[in-house]
Amino acid sequence: MAASTTYSPETQALAVYEKDGPLRPYTFSRRELRANDVAVRIRYSGVCHTDIHNIRNANGWPLTYPMVPGHEIAGDVVAVGPAVSTLSVGDPVLIGVQVDSCRECERCREQLEIYCVEFPIGTYASRDRVDGTPTQGGFSSLYVVDESFAFRAPEGMDMSRAAPLMCAGVTVFAPLRQWRIGPGSTVGVVGIGGLGHLAVKYAQALGAHVVAFTSSASKTDEILALGAHEVVHTKDAARLQAQAGKIDLMLDTVSAPHRLDELMWTVKFDGVYSTLGAAGRIDVDPIAVMLGRRKVTSSGGGGSADIRAMLAFSAAHGIYPEVEFISPGYVNTALERLERGDVRYRFVIDMARGFPTGKEA
Amino acid sequence: MAASTTYSPETQALAVYEKDGPLRPYTFSRRELRANDVAVRIRYSGVCHTDIHNIRNANGWPLTYPMVPGHEIAGDVVAVGPAVSTLSVGDPVLIGVQVDSCRECERCREQLEIYCVEFPIGTYASRDRVDGTPTQGGFSSLYVVDESFAFRAPEGMDMSRAAPLMCAGVTVFAPLRQWRIGPGSTVGVVGIGGLGHLAVKYAQALGAHVVAFTSSASKTDEILALGAHEVVHTKDAARLQAQAGKIDLMLDTVSAPHRLDELMWTVKFDGVYSTLGAAGRIDVDPIAVMLGRRKVTSSGGGGSADIRAMLAFSAAHGIYPEVEFISPGYVNTALERLERGDVRYRFVIDMARGFPTGKEA
Repeated sequence: MAASTTYSPETQALAVYEKDGPLRPYTFSRRELRANDVAVRIRYSGVCHTDIHNIRNANGWPLTYPMVPGHEIAGDVVAVGPAVSTLSVGDPVLIGVQVDSCRECERCREQLEIYCVEFPIGTYASRDRVDGTPTQGGFSSLYVVDESFAFRAPEGMDMSRAAPLMCAGVTVFAPLRQWRIGPGSTVGVVGIGGLGHLAVKYAQALGAHVVAFTSSASKTDEILALGAHEVVHTKDAARLQAQAGKIDLMLDTVSAPHRLDELMWTVKFDGVYSTLGAAGRIDVDPIAVMLGRRKVTSSGGGGSADIRAMLAFSAAHGIYPEVEFISPGYVNTALERLERGDVRYRFVIDMARGFPTGKEA
Repeated sequence: MAASTTYSPETQALAVYEKDGPLRPYTFSRRELRANDVAVRIRYSGVCHTDIHNIRNANGWPLTYPMVPGHEIAGDVVAVGPAVSTLSVGDPVLIGVQVDSCRECERCREQLEIYCVEFPIGTYASRDRVDGTPTQGGFSSLYVVDESFAFRAPEGMDMSRAAPLMCAGVTVFAPLRQWRIGPGSTVGVVGIGGLGHLAVKYAQALGAHVVAFTSSASKTDEILALGAHEVVHTKDAARLQAQAGKIDLMLDTVSAPHRLDELMWTVKFDGVYSTLGAAGRIDVDPIAVMLGRRKVTSSGGGGSADIRAMLAFSAAHGIYPEVEFISPGYVNTALERLERGDVRYRFVIDMARGFPTGKEA
């Protein structure tokens, strides 16, 4: 359809050069466009807790350096490969945590590509399925990706705040969708940070009764303003007990290891406790699970069907993260602040503010 | 309906007189029949791992001594209260882990009384809802119970082997029923002991493909003879990996604490891992749960609907535990043997062999 256009593959980026190292400027070339590729000029890139995880190499994976983090990307198509049929130059698009999959397994056919049996190809810290080169993420000026994993933004979407929807947003939206949350449901959200504050907004917009659980009593008014109907301080044992058996679906977004015991009792009979924060091992008293026939589960983002549904819902209801915009040069400081919880609620790198050129990033 | 008959409330029993103490003879009187009570002459009583748990007071509950264990009971009705309408003198009945509930909450109305919001009254180590006296269990010659918790045995049931169905049996049958296991399903069973060997029999009779997971490679032939289609030695990493993503419902009956990680990967996408062995804390790698959107759950026996369905299915398919019959005087030895796994697969006390009279039990 749309004609291929020329573009410069040269990409400015911020990369870590060693495990746990700081981000420093890095310039490299994105690949030549394949038949179904699009080139995306990145305008905004969200900063996710997973980025800290990967910079630290907390999973001990075999990483390749320099490594460019970032998997919450908003931009515009600047060039398309000859076989691209779904996108045109100028289209606003969003890219999330995944850039390829096998396309053939049962999960891929169900549009649950994030669960591809051959494993999803990550937006960074992964390897391209075709040529084996390392994937490099969104803390950069340009991305080249198969059109299947660049999602056209719905009409009217605020692109400046949309990038974090592609990881934080879909991670909490997918379980709300899977468990058919709507009017009459009660949703609990544990931890009101990047993921949690979006979970509160989505659950409220879906018509659920929303109970936010937080260890920061000082955040109460702010959390009510996000749309929560009740805020429970997790250190207040009496308030916690008063919630016993009330929650249909709990979304636990806490990214530090913690016991689920006390919170588990707030879940209804046959209800679901979903741990989304990748917070160490799941550790829970079996009695708290058994006596309510509760289910402990987790999910890893969403597939393309979830992403499309999430984007349409977000645009229709005006649901975006609360954002603090930063320049690329501020990202090391932002990561430090994120780690100590000093952000309300998501850092987004605004590429228009310009990449640092020296070693001072 | 049936006329009340006279009976002697004097009961011979075996009781522990202190935490972790041995079982010794104990004589006491069961209560006078209330309007809906039946008196049951106990003929057989199963020995469950939970009995060891309670003798040790592993949960630290406030127990009353002497305490008579036993919650797998088979016997005959010998007397009925004036308002009893469902049972008659001479009826063969079975009593399980629960003897009362509030009868009014949502769970009780759904015939899921074991999840009563006011908590189930246990067959022993609990307190009567009416007068607060301690309940005393089935290692005894007589039980008095509300007719709602004495289940008439189906026609043709082998009462000598039926008692363990009331705890071990329904504990594994209820999740098979809840998750609608049948032809086309693949069921995994971890730990082939008292619960596990019944799980294999039920799952096979329901038409499922049954994979047994055991740490005892020497048991393989025996487990195939129980009805398993495959037996996987849990220390054989290659065999375990070959099962990846195959199990719809895993029933983990192991009663010692263990990590679920390696076994979790054998569960299908969106599949269920049910921990039934009350084996310490649930401890699992969240990645193994997340990447398959798996559910970890547990359940605590079954309600009256599960029990009736289980009894009908057991009688129709001739499903009973493998049993070693013992005399009441052998029970201390049996508990020691049970603790070290030296039983295939369930001890059942045959009351006809006579209670010890002295202190030598």
